[in-house]
Amino acid sequence: MVGNKQIVLKDYVKGFLKESDLILKTSDVELNIPGGCNGAVLVKNLYLSCDPYMRGRMVKMEGSYIDSFTPGEVIVGYGVAKIVDSSNPNFKKGDLIWGMTGWEEYSLIKSTEAIFKIPSLDVPLSFYTGILGMAGMTAYVGFYEICSPKKGEIVFVSAASGAVGQLVGQFAKLFGCYVVGSAGSQDKVDLLKNKFGFDDAFNYKEEPDIDAAIKRYFPDGIDIYFENVGGKMLEGVLPNMRSRGRIAGCGMISQYNLEKQDATRNLIYLILKQIRMQGFLVFDYFHLYPKYLEMVLPLIQEGKLAYVEDIVEGIEAAPAALVGLFSGKNVGKQVVAVAQD
Amino acid sequence: MVGNKQIVLKDYVKGFLKESDLILKTSDVELNIPGGCNGAVLVKNLYLSCDPYMRGRMVKMEGSYIDSFTPGEVIVGYGVAKIVDSSNPNFKKGDLIWGMTGWEEYSLIKSTEAIFKIPSLDVPLSFYTGILGMAGMTAYVGFYEICSPKKGEIVFVSAASGAVGQLVGQFAKLFGCYVVGSAGSQDKVDLLKNKFGFDDAFNYKEEPDIDAAIKRYFPDGIDIYFENVGGKMLEGVLPNMRSRGRIAGCGMISQYNLEKQDATRNLIYLILKQIRMQGFLVFDYFHLYPKYLEMVLPLIQEGKLAYVEDIVEGIEAAPAALVGLFSGKNVGKQVVAVAQD
Repeated sequence: MVGNKQIVLKDYVKGFLKESDLILKTSDVELNIPGGCNGAVLVKNLYLSCDPYMRGRMVKMEGSYIDSFTPGEVIVGYGVAKIVDSSNPNFKKGDLIWGMTGWEEYSLIKSTEAIFKIPSLDVPLSFYTGILGMAGMTAYVGFYEICSPKKGEIVFVSAASGAVGQLVGQFAKLFGCYVVGSAGSQDKVDLLKNKFGFDDAFNYKEEPDIDAAIKRYFPDGIDIYFENVGGKMLEGVLPNMRSRGRIAGCGMISQYNLEKQDATRNLIYLILKQIRMQGFLVFDYFHLYPKYLEMVLPLIQEGKLAYVEDIVEGIEAAPAALVGLFSGKNVGKQVVAVAQD
Repeated sequence: MVGNKQIVLKDYVKGFLKESDLILKTSDVELNIPGGCNGAVLVKNLYLSCDPYMRGRMVKMEGSYIDSFTPGEVIVGYGVAKIVDSSNPNFKKGDLIWGMTGWEEYSLIKSTEAIFKIPSLDVPLSFYTGILGMAGMTAYVGFYEICSPKKGEIVFVSAASGAVGQLVGQFAKLFGCYVVGSAGSQDKVDLLKNKFGFDDAFNYKEEPDIDAAIKRYFPDGIDIYFENVGGKMLEGVLPNMRSRGRIAGCGMISQYNLEKQDATRNLIYLILKQIRMQGFLVFDYFHLYPKYLEMVLPLIQEGKLAYVEDIVEGIEAAPAALVGLFSGKNVGKQVVAVAQD
């Protein structure tokens, strides 16, 4: 029996997520699988992934693609963990896994459908919260499957230094596109241009007129917009799309904390410019994961892909890290390191 | 030399189109092709098509898919005409054609790329302004190519009694879908249910809460939305779409006369529901016209497709007919009969 620090949702969240919406509490946990839990695994969590979509699980929502969190209970998300005990023949003690786990030190995972074994590879374990996990798959699926890219096309990525954006931009560059990103600080803009190899980048917070900024960075228009932001950014992008452009709807982080969503003008350009705008959820595409690893692992190992993480230490730091996503505090993929091994 | 009554655009139009924005004037025209016009044809216009997209050509717009009309000059649109004189080997005197022509009694058509010869078939000539012309192709392309329909899916068509909507609904029914349409009067609703065979229909003008109306008519959600309207209708549809639904962006007639377009909420559902929303212009798809005729002509001849036209007589009536589209005065495809032969 050991202590188990946990992050619990206080109640459904209205408006901007605050640290106080998430409560740190300590329970006791036995490091054996309880009776009647055949097929379950007990894991020690090593890394937790902070992802914007988690905000959507903090409201009561029916008919969504994913269940709401339950007030008073531990929240869940993607993470990397080590098997401590297993009643499942596919996992044994000591195995490393990534997938859906609890925001706590130890988790009993009853359904193992959403966890994947980590092969022993020469990459940092934390990468499985991002580039080798959901964010990487999201960038891969969004860019290659949804955007239908062609070499030489002009690509715009918003929230471009985030977990997904940084990868989309680099995939697009490797594919032979011209890529511009937007982010929320000069440091991030520098990162986009100097580390991730974007052709250009701008700080949207210093652009009072988004439409004018987009016209300046895309005098010939945009073929592909990778949408992570929504709201006013989308409104500014639409008139500047080129004919037969594509918009991959990956996320709308500007909207997740609003009680009443922004309304977007300029949708008429979807018709005038014959644009395909397609929302997607990565969960539908995990059958492509082996194919993705085949592509991405050599790129990482050969140093052709940069990847920036923002790692905070200790589960106590998890609420602030998650909240920070929505004001853009993180630089790169936001990770919480819970334990070393 | 004969008199040629013409409809001229007074000036670029702001706000709601009015009859006084279009001026009837009479010029003289010689019924021979002038010198230096090799390849041209001179036509006598028989029917003119009133189409909502024409409103977009009455503003000064750069970089659009189609040129703006020129103030002081005759407006152009789709029509049916008879060749009076030809300097083009593909057309001879007496041939009937449909395609882009002037809103006048006689037109000199210098570029014949946008006109098609009409075979002698046992269908009314006016059909080539609609079901056998652009509106028909729009319905065909929009439904079959853009919506990716599957048998048994639930389809919603807005502006459903219009030239395009009435055909989309019938194509969807013939395909095996469940189809509901919206229109702006009880008469049109009756037409949808009794003449066009829609499964259900409603008058949006009597629905103060569009979201509630849609929930009532689509308790299981919408797989395919054929968008002719835009604005509040789209906003109401989005939360009621089913997962992996498709929206064909054909037109947004509610928006064409607005100085400042409505803003639309609920775009987040594009992601949450993994929706593909695709704008299209029929002009890109005319290579499919022979294939469309092959499908649609037997349906017309066997009486399997109903088609309602609203024909006014005389070019003098053309401005009011065009203006009437935007308040829904027309019942069915709005046509102007200019001459008998």
